[in-house]
Amino acid sequence: MLKQMNSLILARRHLWVAGGGLRAKEGDKGKGKGKGKENEKFRTEKDTFGELKVPADKLYGAQTMRSKLNFPIGDIAERMPMPVIQAMGILKKACAEVNKEFGLDGKISDAVSCACDDVISGKLYKQGHFPLVIWQTGSGTQSNMNTNEVISNAAIKMMGGELGSKKPVHPNDHVNKSQSSNDTFPTAIHISVGMELNERLVPSVTHLRDALKSKSDEFKDIIKIGRTHLMDAVPLTLGQEFSGYAQQLTYGLDRIKSCLPRVYELALGGTAVGTGLNTHKGFAEKVAKRIAELTCLPFVTAPNKFEALAARDAMVEVHGVLNTIAVSLMKIANDIRLLGSGPRCGLGELMLPENEPGSSIMPGKVNPTQCESMTMLCAQVMGNQVAVTIGGSNGHFELNVFKPLIISNVLRSIRLLADGSMTFSKNCVEGLQANKERIDKIMNESLMLVTALNPHIGYDKSAQIAKTAHKNKTTLKEEALKTGITEEQFKEWVNPKEMLGPK
Amino acid sequence: MLKQMNSLILARRHLWVAGGGLRAKEGDKGKGKGKGKENEKFRTEKDTFGELKVPADKLYGAQTMRSKLNFPIGDIAERMPMPVIQAMGILKKACAEVNKEFGLDGKISDAVSCACDDVISGKLYKQGHFPLVIWQTGSGTQSNMNTNEVISNAAIKMMGGELGSKKPVHPNDHVNKSQSSNDTFPTAIHISVGMELNERLVPSVTHLRDALKSKSDEFKDIIKIGRTHLMDAVPLTLGQEFSGYAQQLTYGLDRIKSCLPRVYELALGGTAVGTGLNTHKGFAEKVAKRIAELTCLPFVTAPNKFEALAARDAMVEVHGVLNTIAVSLMKIANDIRLLGSGPRCGLGELMLPENEPGSSIMPGKVNPTQCESMTMLCAQVMGNQVAVTIGGSNGHFELNVFKPLIISNVLRSIRLLADGSMTFSKNCVEGLQANKERIDKIMNESLMLVTALNPHIGYDKSAQIAKTAHKNKTTLKEEALKTGITEEQFKEWVNPKEMLGPK
Amino acid sequence: MLKQMNSLILARRHLWVAGGGLRAKEGDKGKGKGKGKENEKFRTEKDTFGELKVPADKLYGAQTMRSKLNFPIGDIAERMPMPVIQAMGILKKACAEVNKEFGLDGKISDAVSCACDDVISGKLYKQGHFPLVIWQTGSGTQSNMNTNEVISNAAIKMMGGELGSKKPVHPNDHVNKSQSSNDTFPTAIHISVGMELNERLVPSVTHLRDALKSKSDEFKDIIKIGRTHLMDAVPLTLGQEFSGYAQQLTYGLDRIKSCLPRVYELALGGTAVGTGLNTHKGFAEKVAKRIAELTCLPFVTAPNKFEALAARDAMVEVHGVLNTIAVSLMKIANDIRLLGSGPRCGLGELMLPENEPGSSIMPGKVNPTQCESMTMLCAQVMGNQVAVTIGGSNGHFELNVFKPLIISNVLRSIRLLADGSMTFSKNCVEGLQANKERIDKIMNESLMLVTALNPHIGYDKSAQIAKTAHKNKTTLKEEALKTGITEEQFKEWVNPKEMLGPK
Amino acid sequence: MLKQMNSLILARRHLWVAGGGLRAKEGDKGKGKGKGKENEKFRTEKDTFGELKVPADKLYGAQTMRSKLNFPIGDIAERMPMPVIQAMGILKKACAEVNKEFGLDGKISDAVSCACDDVISGKLYKQGHFPLVIWQTGSGTQSNMNTNEVISNAAIKMMGGELGSKKPVHPNDHVNKSQSSNDTFPTAIHISVGMELNERLVPSVTHLRDALKSKSDEFKDIIKIGRTHLMDAVPLTLGQEFSGYAQQLTYGLDRIKSCLPRVYELALGGTAVGTGLNTHKGFAEKVAKRIAELTCLPFVTAPNKFEALAARDAMVEVHGVLNTIAVSLMKIANDIRLLGSGPRCGLGELMLPENEPGSSIMPGKVNPTQCESMTMLCAQVMGNQVAVTIGGSNGHFELNVFKPLIISNVLRSIRLLADGSMTFSKNCVEGLQANKERIDKIMNESLMLVTALNPHIGYDKSAQIAKTAHKNKTTLKEEALKTGITEEQFKEWVNPKEMLGPK
Repeated sequence: MLKQMNSLILARRHLWVAGGGLRAKEGDKGKGKGKGKENEKFRTEKDTFGELKVPADKLYGAQTMRSKLNFPIGDIAERMPMPVIQAMGILKKACAEVNKEFGLDGKISDAVSCACDDVISGKLYKQGHFPLVIWQTGSGTQSNMNTNEVISNAAIKMMGGELGSKKPVHPNDHVNKSQSSNDTFPTAIHISVGMELNERLVPSVTHLRDALKSKSDEFKDIIKIGRTHLMDAVPLTLGQEFSGYAQQLTYGLDRIKSCLPRVYELALGGTAVGTGLNTHKGFAEKVAKRIAELTCLPFVTAPNKFEALAARDAMVEVHGVLNTIAVSLMKIANDIRLLGSGPRCGLGELMLPENEPGSSIMPGKVNPTQCESMTMLCAQVMGNQVAVTIGGSNGHFELNVFKPLIISNVLRSIRLLADGSMTFSKNCVEGLQANKERIDKIMNESLMLVTALNPHIGYDKSAQIAKTAHKNKTTLKEEALKTGITEEQFKEWVNPKEMLGPK
Repeated sequence: MLKQMNSLILARRHLWVAGGGLRAKEGDKGKGKGKGKENEKFRTEKDTFGELKVPADKLYGAQTMRSKLNFPIGDIAERMPMPVIQAMGILKKACAEVNKEFGLDGKISDAVSCACDDVISGKLYKQGHFPLVIWQTGSGTQSNMNTNEVISNAAIKMMGGELGSKKPVHPNDHVNKSQSSNDTFPTAIHISVGMELNERLVPSVTHLRDALKSKSDEFKDIIKIGRTHLMDAVPLTLGQEFSGYAQQLTYGLDRIKSCLPRVYELALGGTAVGTGLNTHKGFAEKVAKRIAELTCLPFVTAPNKFEALAARDAMVEVHGVLNTIAVSLMKIANDIRLLGSGPRCGLGELMLPENEPGSSIMPGKVNPTQCESMTMLCAQVMGNQVAVTIGGSNGHFELNVFKPLIISNVLRSIRLLADGSMTFSKNCVEGLQANKERIDKIMNESLMLVTALNPHIGYDKSAQIAKTAHKNKTTLKEEALKTGITEEQFKEWVNPKEMLGPK
Repeated sequence: MLKQMNSLILARRHLWVAGGGLRAKEGDKGKGKGKGKENEKFRTEKDTFGELKVPADKLYGAQTMRSKLNFPIGDIAERMPMPVIQAMGILKKACAEVNKEFGLDGKISDAVSCACDDVISGKLYKQGHFPLVIWQTGSGTQSNMNTNEVISNAAIKMMGGELGSKKPVHPNDHVNKSQSSNDTFPTAIHISVGMELNERLVPSVTHLRDALKSKSDEFKDIIKIGRTHLMDAVPLTLGQEFSGYAQQLTYGLDRIKSCLPRVYELALGGTAVGTGLNTHKGFAEKVAKRIAELTCLPFVTAPNKFEALAARDAMVEVHGVLNTIAVSLMKIANDIRLLGSGPRCGLGELMLPENEPGSSIMPGKVNPTQCESMTMLCAQVMGNQVAVTIGGSNGHFELNVFKPLIISNVLRSIRLLADGSMTFSKNCVEGLQANKERIDKIMNESLMLVTALNPHIGYDKSAQIAKTAHKNKTTLKEEALKTGITEEQFKEWVNPKEMLGPK
Repeated sequence: MLKQMNSLILARRHLWVAGGGLRAKEGDKGKGKGKGKENEKFRTEKDTFGELKVPADKLYGAQTMRSKLNFPIGDIAERMPMPVIQAMGILKKACAEVNKEFGLDGKISDAVSCACDDVISGKLYKQGHFPLVIWQTGSGTQSNMNTNEVISNAAIKMMGGELGSKKPVHPNDHVNKSQSSNDTFPTAIHISVGMELNERLVPSVTHLRDALKSKSDEFKDIIKIGRTHLMDAVPLTLGQEFSGYAQQLTYGLDRIKSCLPRVYELALGGTAVGTGLNTHKGFAEKVAKRIAELTCLPFVTAPNKFEALAARDAMVEVHGVLNTIAVSLMKIANDIRLLGSGPRCGLGELMLPENEPGSSIMPGKVNPTQCESMTMLCAQVMGNQVAVTIGGSNGHFELNVFKPLIISNVLRSIRLLADGSMTFSKNCVEGLQANKERIDKIMNESLMLVTALNPHIGYDKSAQIAKTAHKNKTTLKEEALKTGITEEQFKEWVNPKEMLGPK
């Protein structure tokens, strides 16, 4: 079909694709440092499937390596999100401490607890010890084992043991003691979401809400045309308009609060299928209490562990709330960009901060880029909602196996909404200015002020006046006077300032 | 491409499509009664656009007729749902009564209030006085005017006036007094959803939840194999399994409760753009109070009318909850049909009630049809979620104009979930029987009972035993004994009855 | 919580809800005609589950009745859509005729074929012989049996037999001969979608596309401001703008064409699981050929019947196309309503036809209601996409059991898009008028004409001119002259007419 | 609420969140290299908004830096995907070469063309010169400018100039010559998607399809029970079952092919609003031709540039196809895991490759992890479909500003489906083994073989036999003989081998 080709360039790209793209290349980085593969250091790790070589500088073991090899899917963007791993660290720490009460050797417990701190801080994640992707086993077992292996090796290191020896700290028998992936992974989900909602989303949404509220106060005396169906309607103040936006986010915060009780319930203690086999009476409660202490959030043990393992409904519910917040933010961002449209051929009621050149071809153009970023990320959240819903609905029997999908979407939505709200607030809302002159001009040209005549002359006659003015391109007043209304009456009745509330 | 055609039959179908399908035919029904069009009775109605003929036996007026003519979209399934119209009746009644306090002529008020009763009962809807489709103006103005026209004519009739004369009861000046479509329609949305959630969904979900709970009790002593990843896992009781389902729905009820406070807030009093122009101070509060009395639900006036008109976030939130309930129900229905699969080549743990022949070709086949109906309607609810989300996010300025879309989806989802829960409960869950023999047989064959050995011999050795038994197609016990475990130990340690909870 | 209640009215509504709502009431209609239940006529029908009373005036039998009783879900809007039943009629006719070739008694075959004609025309559907809802068994078996029963009884009637006797025409052994629900229902899906796409959607979209094209021609000389990011940009003609809309729909038609080959492949001949058990070699091909003749569409037998029964991917693909068309239409309708916004405080470039009064409170207000109807129905289609996707992905083994869900959504989307396109075209697009005066005025005020200076003075200097004019509220020309550009140069370089294409 | 807290650990996590999380930390990396901030090297870059410091070792300029500062959203996972940037490189190269024909200085053109090669190969992306996130301006202007800046500086470097001097190669006047972000970014979208579909998705899906086909051949003589509604049905071969899966993917490949014509149409030449202002007649055609040569794909210039800029419908269409493929893959993966369920308490017909230990608590457990990975990523694709749909539908006037959202989702879906198909094929499908013994055993126990009796004794009598056998827990044969069928007849009629096709 084509006559010619640029083989050199494309050969390079093809090679890249064939080699698995970005991901593969990144994996290669290490090699470049030395003089070739022979220089790379490995050690041997072992699991119930046998031995496997793992990079010598990594703390993970055979099961992590196996997952890496079995799931070469996507690039670095597909990694299991850091907050889940941090939450894993928190719960492993809590378990180690509680297991001590139930008889686990104090030295082991202490080493494990200490090793967890570097998981919690994110240090070990950032150093590449948690390389697994979202698209692994649907129970998150491999990330649970990744955590167990890293913590066990870190603890072994502290205690002077040999990496990979599983002595004195065994990843399953000690780090995972009284646990199963089936209760730890959902617990990590709830911990990470509880923390991210509280630490990240609530402050950001509150910040934006307050910015909108403060604009509402600032704009409280600016009377403007109202618009319904995008058509001219009766007036309101710009402050009133912004009060609606602030109210949307106030409700958004209420919505987050409404779903938190179910987020605070933890699966830990259910072990493999919800029965709590191989754990102790009281373990679930004690661990939940310790997690609550560590996170300063009111986590409790879930009243029914079968639901807590088999369903992820609480996440579907949380995402329903995130979806609602995205809906609110999309409305707000859309309104602001429409109000700022122009500068000369649009509505032009607001002036948005000018943050960057807007066009590579049209000089001097400035665009509502913050609104665009916001509406795009809201669309992403709305898409994530469907992914979470499908994942949530497809569990079977004792275990939902769409968990990495679900948590990655929930965390991404939280992050996007949080960062987006902050950015949008700082780089757009806080710098908004009203174009008072233009607002005033077009408001006074509107025909919809006629509505104020209804109580005096009825709907049908009022309609007649507005329609005639529209047809004749005249003002309301001109036409009103023709119908016998006096100038005084018109002035008294049709006064935008008097149209801002009930009488 | 084709050689031949059956012109007669297809001509008929083509005619039907060209004529607008079912809808058109239905419109023709009336004609069939007399001897032709000349016999059909009409009267003339008028609005600000001019005169229009409407069917003499219908109470609606020119604006309704105009909408019928302008939006010939879909068939009877596309009608504005009845609960919205009933809610319109409730709010028109409340307004009429409160307007009386603010000076509306008592006779008019009483006639309007009385006319509303037949809207509330559904009688006028069922008689065809509300013919408009969902796909009209996005504000619901035409359904508001439909209601105003029907009530005004009904009241005129009561008072001995002439239909269409607008005297003594004017659709805008009296029935719509102190109101706008922009505050009535969202109010009707909240009223109808508040009522349908309370009267329809909560009882149905509660009914199903109780049925599952009672099955959980009934099955509490049946020990069965647990399944994670669809693979054999450690045992639990069938009662424990069902307790998870019941818990999912208990949370579902909690979720409904969580979103109700925002449903109970009413837009009425905001009129055209939220300012409350042309209404009276105190009107909003009084009307909300009256609506609360009429519905026995704690409706209040919304604290911010700008949000209440411009956004429909509360509906997006409600649908997020409905979506979560759909997710729960899909999980439950899927589990039940999988557990009931067979009878001879599937899991066969449950026996579902046999309600009907299952196949037109395979004699004696019985299928999990109730589960299928349920999972299909859950999928519909998940789709509706997206429609509501898109509608909710696309409002502009002072008014969201995707309201008929939004409310029709919310009401449909409620109805499907409610009817579906009841049907599923009565025709499936309540009649479920456990196939105890089979449950016991396969549970005892499972290799996963090995998990109970972990605390005694460690994870790695236990794994070895299970793997060998799998490979040799032997039993756990056989292989365990080979490793040095005694028969007594095995019996003591590997006892399903002891595996149902923490120690 | 409430002090008072209006027990009378609510009692009526409660009763209605408790009674199953609209659906139940409709079912009662018949009763009202006589003096009570004793007057209703029934006959006894029988299936392999036993006997059952069915209304004497209905042609359906026991299995239909059983489904009615087992699935009381939703109101009349939830009925299996008519085009599926009509398609069932077509395929039953084709099968009867082909079965004759394979030995079916000619009299029976002829009677069945003849009875099918009233199914195909829609007559029997409209008379209430197909009362089943979407939310039945997921294979559509009950609608297949409904069809078999109705046709068998209709044929029995013709042949002078007794309704319900199954003699001389048996619903399974004759009407369903060589068939299974598992191959007939997907076949009906493909036939109905093939017909609806060709007869309904293609003509409507073509009509709207042509209307947009003709507006594009009409507006070809009107130069207007372009808008990117909703901000003023360089000019184009209104005709060019509309040419983009027309092009979107031209592609839409291409997209429909692209997916039709897979729609034209029919499952018939696969019977129960795809093997074609109990049918004859050549049956599949002959039936497909007969269906092609009856419908004048190039239907063929599917090359792999296992896929044809187990998957409904072709419907997911079709809906992906419908979804894309909805995306196109939403863009077009949104643009038109934004261009028509005003009349005095918006963009005001287009004047939309005034079809009805727009507000119940603001006299003289006219709204872009056709755009609103269109965008709402597009949102519905986007929601339906998810329902179809979920249904399509959840099939198991030899059969997808989300078929009624899938087909009802596909048909609804087709109907909405088709009717919506026609209505939007006739009541909006065809009547659009350009507000030339305003278009010209704002175009000339725009600063973005500066772009034409790039090739002459470079991007950076051009930007400086535009920014200064914006800041000083002056014109481009004023600022350009200050930089040394001559009046002649400016006139020559900055000429909107010269900015409409490459040089 | 909590008594105690672990302030040290949490302080670290809090700090991390407050500091913007992972993203911020990554930004800090550079600092670690020297002794502190003072050591970091910067140079000054400038755009029409003024001067800005950029890292000295990066090739990007002021506009890129501005975007980095203005959109601190998400972590590294949110970067603009590499294939878009590579496609940008391809089109910039093509433009430079064609611009030479239209008078661009040969040295500049050559330097630009040469600089593009390192963009195309991915080298500059991997080195961090393209740091911008998806959540920037919706037109992709900032990524277009990022590309212009990097290429201009790379070319300047080659030519011995000073970075940031814009001499002799200006990012706008030379690299972006005859272009606008509004036509380059959609062109990059189409190029990258065209390449990724051809180079990545088609080969992977073909690979998996072939693997399924080869299993279909391998399993062609294994007769097994069919299952409809998850219930026992008539038999088919395992090979027939797998042939359906292969057929699904064959259609998937057809679907990709169907949408490619519209992907191959390029927007380049439309510049700012589609008119082609500031470009030359013939430029569009020549550039498209050059791009076709560079990519070996049949790209052409789009017939209507207004559509090509304003809409992204082709991407919505493409994603509809991806969504359909996800639906196919989910069905296939679900079936395989259900068929492999067990090993002792499930269906157990297939044995999946054992790739890793399946449980952290249940020793010896092996799970269908490849199916889980696949179904999770399919769910993600289904969610992405909604994001793309919303983005596609929300364009305004001359430009869609949801482009980075759209392309990032399309590319992610392609990547996930492609990598997922390959992984699933290699680590699951290719190693599947049939458990022939079990397949045979349960098939012979099934009651649905009764269907073969229909043509001999009719549906009703056959049903009776099956039901009695079910009730009595006997075999079909036992019950059939009781009804008078002879042993010979039964043997002849009920022979699974004879039930695999039409007669």
